[in-house]
Amino acid sequence: MPPLQAYHRNLDYTYAPGLFPTLEALTKQSHLVRRVLISSSINNSEGLRQIQKLCEENRIRMETADKMLGKISGKENCFAAAVVSKHSQPLYGNTRHLVLHQPSDKGNMGTILRSALGFSFQDIAIVTPSADVYDPHVIRACMGAMFSLRIQEFDSFEQYHKAFPGHHLYPFMLDGSVPLAEAVNSVLHPHSLIMGNEGAGLPADFKEKGTPVRIPHSDAIDSLNLAVAASIGMYAFSQAEK
Amino acid sequence: MPPLQAYHRNLDYTYAPGLFPTLEALTKQSHLVRRVLISSSINNSEGLRQIQKLCEENRIRMETADKMLGKISGKENCFAAAVVSKHSQPLYGNTRHLVLHQPSDKGNMGTILRSALGFSFQDIAIVTPSADVYDPHVIRACMGAMFSLRIQEFDSFEQYHKAFPGHHLYPFMLDGSVPLAEAVNSVLHPHSLIMGNEGAGLPADFKEKGTPVRIPHSDAIDSLNLAVAASIGMYAFSQAEK
Repeated sequence: MPPLQAYHRNLDYTYAPGLFPTLEALTKQSHLVRRVLISSSINNSEGLRQIQKLCEENRIRMETADKMLGKISGKENCFAAAVVSKHSQPLYGNTRHLVLHQPSDKGNMGTILRSALGFSFQDIAIVTPSADVYDPHVIRACMGAMFSLRIQEFDSFEQYHKAFPGHHLYPFMLDGSVPLAEAVNSVLHPHSLIMGNEGAGLPADFKEKGTPVRIPHSDAIDSLNLAVAASIGMYAFSQAEK
Repeated sequence: MPPLQAYHRNLDYTYAPGLFPTLEALTKQSHLVRRVLISSSINNSEGLRQIQKLCEENRIRMETADKMLGKISGKENCFAAAVVSKHSQPLYGNTRHLVLHQPSDKGNMGTILRSALGFSFQDIAIVTPSADVYDPHVIRACMGAMFSLRIQEFDSFEQYHKAFPGHHLYPFMLDGSVPLAEAVNSVLHPHSLIMGNEGAGLPADFKEKGTPVRIPHSDAIDSLNLAVAASIGMYAFSQAEK
């Protein structure tokens, strides 16, 4: 294997920085883990012992790599990182989907993936152009949740919709005609919650697609944070299906 | 007025960085704005014209201050900032409250304040020690929402509770006994939603206080992001009161 490089989008691998994301990668997707980097200043903790055990079981190499860990994590302390092959997984056809339309913020993306796993939205479509879902910042922000999700990128919303024509669409829009509580009172299955970009939201023509949903809030704010809006939407839909 | 200093917690003023937060400060709390800093590279935009108009109307000094703007905003571009006196406002006694118990992340805090304004929780108690709610990062993350909220700090939860003994308490806990949807089916007024620290949550003895609430999510994640949990809680309670 050639020497590791600082992360950039065109690499075919990424880094899962932090003890917890490293453990998630080793537990959920060990076949994708190429090696594990460890800081020379790591404490002899329970987390380290678990990492060592999983690396031994799966014959994954562990190595001390302080310089690369510094590059990966920037200012934050980082005691371990898994080197993980990038791996797109086709979405399941009969499950509920979350569609992120051109999201641009890595922190939001990570927070959304963590909520998605919590609310059992395990199939995530990302319509590009978007922030790089494999960026180590996303993996850190999602606490490794992405290793338990199926994530597939699409060049356009039309491409997604052609692949899953049977999904009822719930685009979330500031001027959506149906309040969230009403939408979840009569949910159609299977379905896709669709979230727009942080700044621009969804294009206006999404109002013609399926059931446009509005999260009611006061006029005192322009909009909710994207990760907040997506999480409220997934929470409400996950409640409806009980 | 002595020369401006880079932000630190002991100053009696703070900075609202960005065009939108600057406008919010000028619109909602002009009596607290000491002056407005402008970048020499600012575009002649609608935002700038509004700032100029509000400064003239309120006799607030505008000045070019590239170096200080760089210090305030770090890596991000920042074309304007309001210099704002810190100002704690006693909470109202008959309204719903959001209580943040020792929150430690500035970004989360800002996102929560933005959601709080959107869901009409205008009274925010912060139990210290906590991240500095007046930090410019918080003001940026909340998009200036804090200038429309009453925010009061308390040295302990007991101090808060003594001040508002009539509020029914809803502590949010991973092992709360009442699912959120059930709690909002029979809301007691006035009430306080209580959110714990990002890492530690609320101390275990909050289970004995009021109605401990759980946001149901799968075991696949340890917990939701704090800003997400607080926002889901406020959304659900704001729905219940219609």
